[in-house]
Amino acid sequence: MSIADRVKFDDRGLAVAIAQDAVNREILMVAFMNKDALERTLQTGTVHYYSRSRNKLWMKGEESGHVQRVREIRLDCDGDAILISIDQAGVACHEGYRSCFFRRWDGTDWIVDRDRGVDPASVYGRKPS
Amino acid sequence: MSIADRVKFDDRGLAVAIAQDAVNREILMVAFMNKDALERTLQTGTVHYYSRSRNKLWMKGEESGHVQRVREIRLDCDGDAILISIDQAGVACHEGYRSCFFRRWDGTDWIVDRDRGVDPASVYGRKPS
Repeated sequence: MSIADRVKFDDRGLAVAIAQDAVNREILMVAFMNKDALERTLQTGTVHYYSRSRNKLWMKGEESGHVQRVREIRLDCDGDAILISIDQAGVACHEGYRSCFFRRWDGTDWIVDRDRGVDPASVYGRKPS
Repeated sequence: MSIADRVKFDDRGLAVAIAQDAVNREILMVAFMNKDALERTLQTGTVHYYSRSRNKLWMKGEESGHVQRVREIRLDCDGDAILISIDQAGVACHEGYRSCFFRRWDGTDWIVDRDRGVDPASVYGRKPS
């Protein structure tokens, strides 16, 4: 059986993919995978997604060095959502936060209640030293 | 500011919504919310989703009694994914598992490695006692 056999990709060929920190279980990001992205993720052990805006497969951390190593892959009951337990190098968010979910609803507004792990200008353009 | 103001719903009017156990941080389910579902979730403190298959708003646990009480709502950097920290009554999955992610890829197949919390026949049709 191929890993994609039981996955129900939608009419765009995509499934929701959630990246969760393997150690502290923090949700780091949500993106989409097509069949190719899922298969490459399994083959390489490094998470690949499909970008809807760029219409292409991408390896997370390809430019920034902030790669995600796979620990475990799970599938939900409907087969249309994938949960990946990962080890995150650096930060997951392109804005420099460890998690993309750095804003919390406080009753009146979405407030940022997390600290930036790195300067966002450093996330792309060069690999972290 | 309304809670939906910064949320970027897609061309179907939907955003991905992830329910995470507030205590042990287990991911319980993934579904979709439209603007109305998000606003009702905030107003009532009980999670509402939008069903793509039934084309309607629904309160999670409306039939089963397995409601989700909101502890915290977070938004990702792109504004198109919502993370809800919840207290789950009973089980989240309609198949009787606490989490919908009860299958793990073991290298050759998706294997069920979680125990059912309740008989799936009991999830709908009557409230848990």
